[in-house]
Amino acid sequence: MPFNEWLNQICTERNSLVCVGLDVDLNKIPKFILAKNDPQVYFSQAIIEATIEYTAAYKINTAFFEAYGSKGWEDMTTIVNYLPDDVIKIADAKRGDIGNTSKMYTKAFFNELKFDAITVNPYLGSDAVAPFLENEMKGVFVLCHTSNKGAGDFQKFSNGKKALFELVAEQVQKWNICNNCGLVVGATYPDEMKHVRGLAPELPFLVPGLGAQGGDFELAIKYATNENRKGALFNFSRSIIYSSNGEDYAEKADQNARQIRDDINKIRKSRIEQR
Amino acid sequence: MPFNEWLNQICTERNSLVCVGLDVDLNKIPKFILAKNDPQVYFSQAIIEATIEYTAAYKINTAFFEAYGSKGWEDMTTIVNYLPDDVIKIADAKRGDIGNTSKMYTKAFFNELKFDAITVNPYLGSDAVAPFLENEMKGVFVLCHTSNKGAGDFQKFSNGKKALFELVAEQVQKWNICNNCGLVVGATYPDEMKHVRGLAPELPFLVPGLGAQGGDFELAIKYATNENRKGALFNFSRSIIYSSNGEDYAEKADQNARQIRDDINKIRKSRIEQR
Repeated sequence: MPFNEWLNQICTERNSLVCVGLDVDLNKIPKFILAKNDPQVYFSQAIIEATIEYTAAYKINTAFFEAYGSKGWEDMTTIVNYLPDDVIKIADAKRGDIGNTSKMYTKAFFNELKFDAITVNPYLGSDAVAPFLENEMKGVFVLCHTSNKGAGDFQKFSNGKKALFELVAEQVQKWNICNNCGLVVGATYPDEMKHVRGLAPELPFLVPGLGAQGGDFELAIKYATNENRKGALFNFSRSIIYSSNGEDYAEKADQNARQIRDDINKIRKSRIEQR
Repeated sequence: MPFNEWLNQICTERNSLVCVGLDVDLNKIPKFILAKNDPQVYFSQAIIEATIEYTAAYKINTAFFEAYGSKGWEDMTTIVNYLPDDVIKIADAKRGDIGNTSKMYTKAFFNELKFDAITVNPYLGSDAVAPFLENEMKGVFVLCHTSNKGAGDFQKFSNGKKALFELVAEQVQKWNICNNCGLVVGATYPDEMKHVRGLAPELPFLVPGLGAQGGDFELAIKYATNENRKGALFNFSRSIIYSSNGEDYAEKADQNARQIRDDINKIRKSRIEQR
């Protein structure tokens, strides 16, 4: 089954558009966990247990594991393998290189690590992205308009008719031959998100920028979802996984994940009724 | 000492602008090495021994190690540590993410792995690159115009006055406050390289695209070096490390690296005399 079809199926089955971002920083997790063996694994597994009922996807931010060397990479492997088959496993790796190198990245993230999808940087062009697209079961979320302050520095570079991020959206729409392409579109720029949804009506969006980065829920859900109020995954990292610094960190993560799932579903439902 | 100053010092001391790219693919190295313990390490160390006399820098392509999981990452660590202090160690990682994530990548590549420099993708903008720039001793080669066929898909997106890659060159020139910024500029597009050298006269270039990718030596050296015929590192991966598939692979790599170093120096010298 093509990735995008499977994504919709999982989101329907699990009744959630929530993605939990595992940005596991040893300086931010509760102190007492540092005494455990493999604290990144211990913490991630506890967060997964606490949140999985409310979650469609987990996004592992590779930087936070690479920062701890080969031990970090090993722990990342353990965590991916711990996730069940009926959630979407996204490598937030933002890779992209010339063809033969991108090919090696697909081996790293789709073969060695059993991720279902990866985030990819489009700067190098179509032949750099192509190797990631070869397997229809594997999803590719291409960076389009990101959530950070400096997103516009290059992404808004414009020829007067369109900006770079709009060109990227159009191109990715064309690359979506196997129905496995998506876009990363930050919730902190709702106007741009609206444009992108218009340019790429069928592509799933992976949406960072809600939660700690302060994006607006109503607008993000309005513009990021497709006409069926599906086709988007809303990522929450810090605002779920660091819900508490104490012994109750998992319990609080559970509560926050449920609340966020419910808030999003409520807005989706109200928008469907409005139509 | 700022990275760019140190780069020039190393290139002068070693009388070379050659960078050897360690894209170590287990499907391409001589078959008999696969029987050794840690074949990626064994092969890399043999190549380093064979080429170091002619080399200013080594560029490790992270994809080729990530493709072998945590063992690959461990082997990459061993290889970086094996390199002596008086060559430039570049992580060809093409990273770039929002600030707190880029910060973790600096920890991965500058603290855990002892690289001297990294390649960075500019798509996310200035705040995504900023964490990499904080330590003046660490170099940051920002992707500007890459060497691949699809490089122009987005990099040549133009507003009629300038193209994206030119905007990137201008911005990186401005970011070079600590004298530690450089640009990745592919040898396969000499005209674009010439433009970039004009826009960023002082930045060192990391130049892929000679060797296996077929870029022109004369033009690349003419346009990539600065007015002193320095300020550029020319990368060779496949054309040096896979010089032979037999027992003589290191000997052939030695010969090819020496030949390439000499060819480059001859062209540099003739161009200095022409002035």
